[in-house]
Amino acid sequence: MTDTKIDPKILAEAERQLGILSRGTAEIVPEGGLLKKLIKSLETKKPLKIKLGADPTAPDLHLGHTVILNKMRQFQDLGHKVQFLIGDYTALIGDPAGRNKTRPPLSEEQIAENAKTYLDQAHKILDTDPEKLEILQNSTWLSKLSFADTIKLCAKVTVAQIIQREDFSNRLSNNTPISMHELLYPIMQGYDSVAMTCDIELGGTDQTFNCLMGRQLMQGEDMSPQIVITFPLLEGLDGKDKMSKSKNNYIAVEDAPNDMFGKVMSIPDEIMPKYFELLTNVTDQPNHPMEAKKLLANILVTRFHSKKEADAAHTDFETRFSKREVPTELPEHTFDIENNEIGLAALLVQLNFASSNGEGMRLIKQNAVKINGEVVNDPKHFLQPSMEPLILQAGKRRMAKIFLKKDL
Amino acid sequence: MTDTKIDPKILAEAERQLGILSRGTAEIVPEGGLLKKLIKSLETKKPLKIKLGADPTAPDLHLGHTVILNKMRQFQDLGHKVQFLIGDYTALIGDPAGRNKTRPPLSEEQIAENAKTYLDQAHKILDTDPEKLEILQNSTWLSKLSFADTIKLCAKVTVAQIIQREDFSNRLSNNTPISMHELLYPIMQGYDSVAMTCDIELGGTDQTFNCLMGRQLMQGEDMSPQIVITFPLLEGLDGKDKMSKSKNNYIAVEDAPNDMFGKVMSIPDEIMPKYFELLTNVTDQPNHPMEAKKLLANILVTRFHSKKEADAAHTDFETRFSKREVPTELPEHTFDIENNEIGLAALLVQLNFASSNGEGMRLIKQNAVKINGEVVNDPKHFLQPSMEPLILQAGKRRMAKIFLKKDL
Repeated sequence: MTDTKIDPKILAEAERQLGILSRGTAEIVPEGGLLKKLIKSLETKKPLKIKLGADPTAPDLHLGHTVILNKMRQFQDLGHKVQFLIGDYTALIGDPAGRNKTRPPLSEEQIAENAKTYLDQAHKILDTDPEKLEILQNSTWLSKLSFADTIKLCAKVTVAQIIQREDFSNRLSNNTPISMHELLYPIMQGYDSVAMTCDIELGGTDQTFNCLMGRQLMQGEDMSPQIVITFPLLEGLDGKDKMSKSKNNYIAVEDAPNDMFGKVMSIPDEIMPKYFELLTNVTDQPNHPMEAKKLLANILVTRFHSKKEADAAHTDFETRFSKREVPTELPEHTFDIENNEIGLAALLVQLNFASSNGEGMRLIKQNAVKINGEVVNDPKHFLQPSMEPLILQAGKRRMAKIFLKKDL
Repeated sequence: MTDTKIDPKILAEAERQLGILSRGTAEIVPEGGLLKKLIKSLETKKPLKIKLGADPTAPDLHLGHTVILNKMRQFQDLGHKVQFLIGDYTALIGDPAGRNKTRPPLSEEQIAENAKTYLDQAHKILDTDPEKLEILQNSTWLSKLSFADTIKLCAKVTVAQIIQREDFSNRLSNNTPISMHELLYPIMQGYDSVAMTCDIELGGTDQTFNCLMGRQLMQGEDMSPQIVITFPLLEGLDGKDKMSKSKNNYIAVEDAPNDMFGKVMSIPDEIMPKYFELLTNVTDQPNHPMEAKKLLANILVTRFHSKKEADAAHTDFETRFSKREVPTELPEHTFDIENNEIGLAALLVQLNFASSNGEGMRLIKQNAVKINGEVVNDPKHFLQPSMEPLILQAGKRRMAKIFLKKDL
């Protein structure tokens, strides 16, 4: 880099783009590689090609998926081109070992339908200008690979390299069977990059290994290898686990405006900055957590629905929930506790929140009961007298402020 | 088997064939499987199909290879059919990782030529009646495998299973790289059996793993799985290591009659019974080792050349070597040893077997010098006085009986 003179204007523009594109990333491999690609793109006036892999077996997008889509949109806005890859070839195969139930073989029609569902959602974020968005299917090149091609491809990778991938090494050491074909998937994903001659691949940190395989195979073909940019995994509504459908801690792109608004408002304060960093271009979020959440909720509902629906959802939320958060407006009840404790279910009956002890326990088991905003799901939960009041909530509508006094 | 009645004549014939076919085998998997296949073949009057894989990259056959060819011939003589498989598909690919220098990619012409060379030699043992010998090439089916087929095939095998193969597990624990494509070769060999619908696969004990892979893949396709019959590895002329070209301890099928005869005569006595068992149908070999070797040499030279050439080689051997083995006919020399020892090289000079100490050492280094029939290859070897005479030999022609006396 020191030998060739870079036009200062180009360098300045490349560094400006780098600043925008680096935001929220976990890692860029190799360090400095992205700047070089940006400079070259500006010098040659050729947009960079950014690979985005979509799995047509799971077409429901949630906010976790949109982290990368959001970054793709930034690339597009800076003049680059997204290669949207539908992994139809593997979806056609499914999991031939039959162990992975989330991967049944799909028909071509199902794949086309899932891909359309996926794209319809992604289009809410991406620029659909054909100059900036190319749709590809990996069956185009994978269906042409002969057994000899597969052998040659596999010769470029060692066994030790593949089985060091964390999930493989864990399964090997736990004696959990791995089918041989599973080892071929990372190689196939890498070969997609070769066939697409992409400049950059984006992925979650859990995709680092597979993305680097693309770099390696491109180098093996004497191509300029792709830059790998990874992103931290977005925690779900619980603020702890990765957002996922199976954990039921997600905000779906298709969620109705009111639901989406309400779910954003329920996110723990401490992960708000990460949500802003990964999902928005906003760099100066409001200091007050409640105000920050309202802004985020507005941005997201506007993005996935409309400004009008976002405003309506905001008003609705204010009416239904915000006012209830002021404890003084809640009905207050004081209980004298015998034997030093009272069952939660019994308390629900005394408050007329449940008609019987049994119904109270059912509500608790259904995660419908909160104390001070936290779900309590043990039907045999007991409460002790305390100087502090408690906010007890059953379902969405019934709330009370209660004082538990010791019966002297 | 206990439910169905087997015709006693068929059972007797199957057991007779089993007796012949079991001779010299290391293992039959599963035990009892071969008898069942033989009974079924007799009942249905369908000959069994026996798979014989040939590697067209190494077309020079030696006696080690003929162990299995000999067994094939026995199958043919009992009415069964040999499927001679030329592994042309892998030979076309070679070793794409470039680490295995013995496996360069070959052109179709080279493969065809090597296969012809191999077949010409094999035909000296096999019955060439087309009813009993079918020639196949695995490119016929392997070239038609798509990437999806490969994935489905690999799904039938686990990683743990493959890497437990001894050479793989050793290399993994020694951190010697294994390319991913190497793991595909056993699966491919197994798939050959599926495509050939063979009844039996023969192999050396070092091929057990690969042959069992064929059984597994056939079971995965709901086929009657092949029986695997393995054979001990034949030791070479040294009586220790496996016969191989690289160890230079082999008898080539193409060796000239006199060479072949002489090499057989040089085999250590103690491995004669194994040679008879693995290479001939002779069950009552002569007791005297020298007579046994002459018979074996006759059989082999007759097999690979002709009866006439075998007789000529026998006569020649008698004339040139046998007579010399009588020590009394050798020239005798007595040496008085100073300083309690004498250098072997110096002794060769004194016997006029070498013109200088340097030449003597060279002969020793070239393995040309024997004491009592054993090669001595240390150029600084020293001899001590002894009551017993020594037979000293340099090259093929110079021999002497020497007495080393202490110089008093």
